[in-house]
Amino acid sequence: MDLTGDKPSAPRSSPVYVHNPHLDSLKDDVLYHFSLGTRTHNLPAMFGDVKFVCVGGSPWRIKSFTEYIAAELAIEEPNSGYANICAGTDRYTMYKVGPVLSVSHGMGIPSIAIMLHELIKLLHHAHCTDVTVIRIGTSGGIGLEPGTVVVTKQSVDATFLPRLEQVILGKTVVRNTDLDQGLAEELLQCSKELSQFETVIGNTMCTLDFYEGQARLDGALCSYTEKDKQDYLIKAKEAGVCNIEMESSVFAAMCKLSGLRGKKTQHEYLIKKYSNPFEFLTSLFLFGKRLLFV
Amino acid sequence: MDLTGDKPSAPRSSPVYVHNPHLDSLKDDVLYHFSLGTRTHNLPAMFGDVKFVCVGGSPWRIKSFTEYIAAELAIEEPNSGYANICAGTDRYTMYKVGPVLSVSHGMGIPSIAIMLHELIKLLHHAHCTDVTVIRIGTSGGIGLEPGTVVVTKQSVDATFLPRLEQVILGKTVVRNTDLDQGLAEELLQCSKELSQFETVIGNTMCTLDFYEGQARLDGALCSYTEKDKQDYLIKAKEAGVCNIEMESSVFAAMCKLSGLRGKKTQHEYLIKKYSNPFEFLTSLFLFGKRLLFV
Repeated sequence: MDLTGDKPSAPRSSPVYVHNPHLDSLKDDVLYHFSLGTRTHNLPAMFGDVKFVCVGGSPWRIKSFTEYIAAELAIEEPNSGYANICAGTDRYTMYKVGPVLSVSHGMGIPSIAIMLHELIKLLHHAHCTDVTVIRIGTSGGIGLEPGTVVVTKQSVDATFLPRLEQVILGKTVVRNTDLDQGLAEELLQCSKELSQFETVIGNTMCTLDFYEGQARLDGALCSYTEKDKQDYLIKAKEAGVCNIEMESSVFAAMCKLSGLRGKKTQHEYLIKKYSNPFEFLTSLFLFGKRLLFV
Repeated sequence: MDLTGDKPSAPRSSPVYVHNPHLDSLKDDVLYHFSLGTRTHNLPAMFGDVKFVCVGGSPWRIKSFTEYIAAELAIEEPNSGYANICAGTDRYTMYKVGPVLSVSHGMGIPSIAIMLHELIKLLHHAHCTDVTVIRIGTSGGIGLEPGTVVVTKQSVDATFLPRLEQVILGKTVVRNTDLDQGLAEELLQCSKELSQFETVIGNTMCTLDFYEGQARLDGALCSYTEKDKQDYLIKAKEAGVCNIEMESSVFAAMCKLSGLRGKKTQHEYLIKKYSNPFEFLTSLFLFGKRLLFV
């Protein structure tokens, strides 16, 4: 089984891949942290039309995003109140408006990884095709004006290398963290047409820790100086890092392995249904200023 | 500055240490993810009497625990509804009843680490002394009857070594993950007196991932066989691992560095105030069956 991330490009009408032969033999696949399952829920009926998934750390922001995107795409359901699909658990929140699914993922690689495993299985079981997943979140910019939007090209680790070290049965496996370049260019084009704020395409550093891992001076533990911090951030900038956050590496690795990439077809789908070519992507941009797109 | 975790035992009346010289020069220390701060809140007045902190992943469970412990200790405030102290944010939830503070921390090392940085600063700014922190959570047992309670002695990584690899400015620092042995023995003694369920003291494996990291066969990605899984779990058992979860290593490392340990004095405090010597600790045990204590 090839889990190196170096698979050839997916075909045009692309399913959501799972790379797990054991799943076929499961009578009931329980998505524990969503409080959903293949026996208890009709996943194709609930999610079969999903074309975009937007994920972000904060449950409140995900709800707010859902209300915003419904209004922007003129597919509001005024009386629905946008029920949380994962109301049976407090681990994540999930909302759906038309073909757009929005899911919160908490903070850090382990938290988003659990969500992504179950999201990928959900989309697979629901027979979704041509799905684009976009992460929206705040991040710390390096040498950028506050409010700049960074569209991530590659996610790099704390040593500025484009890789995710995944520990499996006690052994470290290295995975690719490239993101879809076509989608990045389209997002940049949207931003140019909007002309409302600065947008750049660049590399995003993904750290395992918010305080010591991001060279902050205000944690409970700090063994380095202001100069050490500045030296590290200068090195990061020189290595092409535009911003820092805590989830992009596993997001990139798992999306790539599962065929979840930005493709022209999804945008055509939205074009056809909602008339304005960049409506969805520009809505994403308008939603907030200090956002990170990966 | 010694951050190796090999500090000598703390004195009997022990403050909560921060190891960060930069904090003294901050006019306002903002605890971002608690929506609290030294300028906006009177932390000594709000938290100065805290002696026990109980942390767990789930916000719902933390609220439920708060209601339970208040009833057990007969310090209920029937009309208060136990307001969430962190209501200004959706990152964590926090409740206080008498000297017991309860805080949720989400899933995974990065998520609990952010919470612990801010919790340690909160306890430090509030001038708390002699604080015991206990994590309660579900875990996957290895070779144990379901319902067994594991009191963690050491937290080990996915290669069964008792260490936390903390990345600081791109460099890996190794930290000690021993937990307080005196507290572990006292918890075991409580359980013996209760005689309601099996309790063991043992090592807990802390993984970076729930699916591939814990050898599960039902993730979206799985490149190993049932036999590979069993071989890995047998090796873990042989290395002394009783159970698996995702937060104990950084919990152990940060508590140790900050002087947050179980000490007899805290129990005497509760004895004096609430009459029954093991009331608090036994309440913890009664709260749930498949709990992890670290």
